[in-house]
Amino acid sequence: MEFLNKNLVFLIPLFGVVGILFMAAKSAWVTKQASGDAKMTELAGYIADGAMAFLRAEWRILAYFVAITMILLAYSGTTVETSSPVIAISFVIGALFSAFAGYLGMRIATKANVRTTEAAKTSLAQALKVSFTGGTVMGLGVAGLAIIGLGSLFIVFYQMYVVKTGGNVNGKDMEKALEVLAGFSLGAESIALFARVGGGIYTKAADVGADLVGKVEAGIPEDDVRNPATIADNVGDNVGDVAGMGADLFGSYVATMLATMVLGREIVSEDQFGGIAPILLPMLIAGLGLVFSIVGASFVGIKKETNSVQNALNLGNWISIILTAIATFFAVRWLLPDTTMSIRGVNFTKTDVFLSIAVGLVVGTLMSIITEYYTAMGKRPVMSIIKQSSTGHATNIIAGLAVGMESTVLPILVLAAGIYGSFHFAGLYGVAIAAAGMMSTTAMQLAIDAFGPIADNAGGIAEMSQLPEEVRHRTDILDAVGNTTAATGKGFAIASAALTSLALFAAFVGVAGIDHIDIYKADVLSGLFVGGMIPFIFSALCISAVGRAAMAMVQEVRRQFREIPGIMEYKAKPEYEKCVAISTQASLREMVAPGLIALITPLIVGFTFGPEVLGGLLAGVTVSGVLMGIFQSNAGGAWDNAKKSFEKGVEINGEIYYKKSELHKASVTGDTVGDPFKDTSGPSMNILIKLMSIVSLIIAPHIHVENNGITKIKPQINKEIKIMPVKTALVKIKP
Amino acid sequence: MEFLNKNLVFLIPLFGVVGILFMAAKSAWVTKQASGDAKMTELAGYIADGAMAFLRAEWRILAYFVAITMILLAYSGTTVETSSPVIAISFVIGALFSAFAGYLGMRIATKANVRTTEAAKTSLAQALKVSFTGGTVMGLGVAGLAIIGLGSLFIVFYQMYVVKTGGNVNGKDMEKALEVLAGFSLGAESIALFARVGGGIYTKAADVGADLVGKVEAGIPEDDVRNPATIADNVGDNVGDVAGMGADLFGSYVATMLATMVLGREIVSEDQFGGIAPILLPMLIAGLGLVFSIVGASFVGIKKETNSVQNALNLGNWISIILTAIATFFAVRWLLPDTTMSIRGVNFTKTDVFLSIAVGLVVGTLMSIITEYYTAMGKRPVMSIIKQSSTGHATNIIAGLAVGMESTVLPILVLAAGIYGSFHFAGLYGVAIAAAGMMSTTAMQLAIDAFGPIADNAGGIAEMSQLPEEVRHRTDILDAVGNTTAATGKGFAIASAALTSLALFAAFVGVAGIDHIDIYKADVLSGLFVGGMIPFIFSALCISAVGRAAMAMVQEVRRQFREIPGIMEYKAKPEYEKCVAISTQASLREMVAPGLIALITPLIVGFTFGPEVLGGLLAGVTVSGVLMGIFQSNAGGAWDNAKKSFEKGVEINGEIYYKKSELHKASVTGDTVGDPFKDTSGPSMNILIKLMSIVSLIIAPHIHVENNGITKIKPQINKEIKIMPVKTALVKIKP
Repeated sequence: MEFLNKNLVFLIPLFGVVGILFMAAKSAWVTKQASGDAKMTELAGYIADGAMAFLRAEWRILAYFVAITMILLAYSGTTVETSSPVIAISFVIGALFSAFAGYLGMRIATKANVRTTEAAKTSLAQALKVSFTGGTVMGLGVAGLAIIGLGSLFIVFYQMYVVKTGGNVNGKDMEKALEVLAGFSLGAESIALFARVGGGIYTKAADVGADLVGKVEAGIPEDDVRNPATIADNVGDNVGDVAGMGADLFGSYVATMLATMVLGREIVSEDQFGGIAPILLPMLIAGLGLVFSIVGASFVGIKKETNSVQNALNLGNWISIILTAIATFFAVRWLLPDTTMSIRGVNFTKTDVFLSIAVGLVVGTLMSIITEYYTAMGKRPVMSIIKQSSTGHATNIIAGLAVGMESTVLPILVLAAGIYGSFHFAGLYGVAIAAAGMMSTTAMQLAIDAFGPIADNAGGIAEMSQLPEEVRHRTDILDAVGNTTAATGKGFAIASAALTSLALFAAFVGVAGIDHIDIYKADVLSGLFVGGMIPFIFSALCISAVGRAAMAMVQEVRRQFREIPGIMEYKAKPEYEKCVAISTQASLREMVAPGLIALITPLIVGFTFGPEVLGGLLAGVTVSGVLMGIFQSNAGGAWDNAKKSFEKGVEINGEIYYKKSELHKASVTGDTVGDPFKDTSGPSMNILIKLMSIVSLIIAPHIHVENNGITKIKPQINKEIKIMPVKTALVKIKP
Repeated sequence: MEFLNKNLVFLIPLFGVVGILFMAAKSAWVTKQASGDAKMTELAGYIADGAMAFLRAEWRILAYFVAITMILLAYSGTTVETSSPVIAISFVIGALFSAFAGYLGMRIATKANVRTTEAAKTSLAQALKVSFTGGTVMGLGVAGLAIIGLGSLFIVFYQMYVVKTGGNVNGKDMEKALEVLAGFSLGAESIALFARVGGGIYTKAADVGADLVGKVEAGIPEDDVRNPATIADNVGDNVGDVAGMGADLFGSYVATMLATMVLGREIVSEDQFGGIAPILLPMLIAGLGLVFSIVGASFVGIKKETNSVQNALNLGNWISIILTAIATFFAVRWLLPDTTMSIRGVNFTKTDVFLSIAVGLVVGTLMSIITEYYTAMGKRPVMSIIKQSSTGHATNIIAGLAVGMESTVLPILVLAAGIYGSFHFAGLYGVAIAAAGMMSTTAMQLAIDAFGPIADNAGGIAEMSQLPEEVRHRTDILDAVGNTTAATGKGFAIASAALTSLALFAAFVGVAGIDHIDIYKADVLSGLFVGGMIPFIFSALCISAVGRAAMAMVQEVRRQFREIPGIMEYKAKPEYEKCVAISTQASLREMVAPGLIALITPLIVGFTFGPEVLGGLLAGVTVSGVLMGIFQSNAGGAWDNAKKSFEKGVEINGEIYYKKSELHKASVTGDTVGDPFKDTSGPSMNILIKLMSIVSLIIAPHIHVENNGITKIKPQINKEIKIMPVKTALVKIKP
């Protein structure tokens, strides 16, 4: 125990290593499964190649971005005492780790998809096993890399800035170490933004484009091998829903830990770890969550064809959450001192810290439940959309928009209560650690999330390979569960982002050296307005990008049908790669503008108007971003399930409506509108608000220094002015 | 001059009297115009009866509300020193004046409509004259009543609380007078909310319902006399776009003056009006604006059939604005002292005050220009919706939503700059007086706004009476201009509401006795989140109410077509009054929930969590409300004009698409979705944010007292606690 106490900081990355080892084992297991016949392998090859092509093209663009940002960060060293070349390196490592996490997940997803199809030939149980194991690889990879990266860099910077200089763990030295560590989070989060937005545009452009020409114009089914855009559509699932989401959660996970660590520095703690227990705690919780995610994942599985897949996933999820909560209780008791701690005037004990974590877990759970209610089939919100489809496209849209707007109420009340509650227990550290608690089982969450697109792809391959009905039926069951987990995952993500942003916000206030953000000041309120507007323009850019890219896709598919004779008769092969290229180029071109808005706005506002106005901007972005995120994700999810309800058959006033009824057509319109809402702009909101907070945190010392500079200059001017009248007075007296 | 200086306060209501006299003259002129043949008079009679029936039913419900609120306000006198029975009376007068303003405007509008139709038989010039004069009656009535009401009550309360007691014009006595005056604004604004929401639901339920069965199912044209819902549709224009908007602008106008007056009290002014010049200024500016609105209105008119109606309106508008600006310049020079004034630490001169007003005028003008750009035919935003209609309903909706979201950017930047600029010149008083400057020509603005629905109704009567093509053509020209002025009017309304809310917000802070609203506190941030959510649930309730009411209308129309034989052959008359009743009942039932949310939320938050959290809530409502207001109004306006473009004919890639093309059908979907956006929820946002601010201002002294109370109680408790341990210690020492 003595040894453990002394070396805990060095042990943390080991949790990550455990995760990576398990990931490798599971990855090997997936790879060795049968990958089906030649046709299936060929199609899966196209998908894998397309996905890799996108990733390579994306990396090429992001390399410029990373290089430029690195130089800017390194150069900024001339104005601040923070060692800027180090933050530049930290940033690059963060970017690389994030990209690598996305790559790992996508590589295994593009292997697991066809193997799931092959497994679905035998049984649902086996298909679930393969697809969920594929998802687990993603989850463990992301969580493992995050803990290794953050944990190791913390060791390095802690040694460099604090231990070697004999510095103060609560003072400027530790602040510098954490400030440099924020570079890692900046790298991770900016890659996440581009991956999420680019991937989101890719997947929906291909999806909408393929549907519009294939289903509507040519009258061929979804995922038909004759549709030139079908490969692009399946690639999209991988680059958007797997790689994009992986990078997204990698970023969230890191940002949450970082924000808690930055706030933890302010706590004077008489613990047995040299006073850094509050800083270590979030990483330890994450490590425990990773281990218990492995445990929970091992419980996921079904015995019989008729068993509920959803229940199997829920069981695994609950096991991880409960075990992690118990372990966290003991971790808090072990790490934190018995004495009262304090942050910015709020006193708290270690019990309070655990209660804050509990608040975070409750908030996360409630958010998932509420999201499920608003997007699930058979519940009142989706039913209202179904009912209003009977008077046409317009009323379907009105109903969906109303559901989306209404669905913000309960999550916001839960969130507000969560902020209030976690703050009540342990001040701002409480808010941050609540987010860390919520995010602790990210590995499990991500496994459940990533299994969805794998199953979706598996279904696509089954359809394209014209496999028997029962195979498609099994993959459809998995796909349907995937849709629900995708929706609840988004509710979870937005809640954690809101708490994390608040924690980052608080960290920013501390580093910037201001002690209030007073919205009743005109300039701060202006900042709040501008901040509130950012999610609107960001969403507008995302959804109109999908619209434009989908139109380009439609034109290419029409061209191929026209110019390549024999496609329809299976005699000629469509040029899949051309559609893949269109989606790739369009998404990469369109991701730049929203990305730059997120990155540059805080810089302009911060350097022009100072930290308090920037604080107002951040508050505006956070509130408006959370609202727009919930609104768009839930409206999209509800529209999707209203459409799916018609595909199953819906009874209204004694009459039953199926696919191809006028009501179903209206619901398809809603679903198409909802696509970019729920898969492009909606889920980007949480990255947007976190990224803007991190950028602000990174520039905080610079604005701080500038303010100090002004303050330093001002007294001198005042002194001169004070001297002047005296002199004049003297001159007057003289004569 | 001496006499004028002494009695200015008594002269202000006279401006209002001048307005009312001109209104009476114009009203008499309209009434004496020919009202057409028996058929036309009969139809106009149905419309007028339906509109009055709605108003009576609405008043019956609002009477309960007014009575309950009056009792609550009067009862609240036991907890505050403010004379609460007086504020209750003030509230009732505000409610009555607001209702009366709406009634006046609607009465004349339901006369002007058929007279415009009759005039359109002769010439466009005459039709414009009748319809615009009808609008002018509304404008002058609203502005005149507002100035008479506010001006007279101010005289009474000023005498009662300040002059008679020999009180301090900058102190508590004047604060009490203005606090009581706020009751008038509360009365006006709460009637406005119900009128706007109720009227908005009414008009869109009838419109959407009439279109869905009439145009789509029965295949008869809009405004066809055989459609049972057509009278309800035309009634809707009057109760929503005339009475609703009249009450809305009455409320805004009063709230803006009041907010400036409350802030003006804080200014120590060495003027020749006993120090109340900063309080009188906003009322004087409004009075001048009213006079020059009369002048400007006299310039509106065309000579030839081919003259531009829009230009004629613009000329009148510009004349009023420029003359008012010049007069305001001299009014500021006359009223305010040459010495430097100061509000909450910001020093300013009278030139600065005028510059703030100039900022307000520039903001208002820019807002109108931007709104026009985003909603006008032929401009990029509407063109993008037209283009994306070629791939169906869904892409039309996506494009419209993207346009609406994008359209928030420039208005928010203008608004933020306006807040920043007007504050820069004259502190919070500058922000308030900027809003007062913007609102000064409300009479002219409202005349231009109200002329639109009159022309719309005139066209409806022409169609229903089966008058010759040329009559309908002339009313169509007026109607088209009315659509543009409606859109720009909304941009203007939301900008003035934002500035007014900020001023009310500042006034609230002063009265509540807090000197900061720090969003970095967890509870205030929670307030900000909850506040930001209110406009979402409010909008959700409004648009889903329209959806439900429209469905009820559809069912009634279907029933009449089914059960009353001969309607289609013009042999039987439809039961218009049943449709009118449905719209009336549905709108009155559905307006309650959103109205109560707006009224009760500030009470709950204020009394439970105190003034600072309430401040956070207000900031959230304001920012989110402005964004949602702009988003919804502009999206709706753009969808509407995209549809209208197809009705004129649109060329895409060399092919021309007209009415009834697939593209046009998609655009009709967009327009239907946009209807509740632009006429129900969107324009309600500005009332929502003002009303919540006024409610907060009214309860501010109560929360303030409570806080003082707590502060007074706390030390006693602390003292007792301090004594206790000493005693215990003594006891321990004894043995």
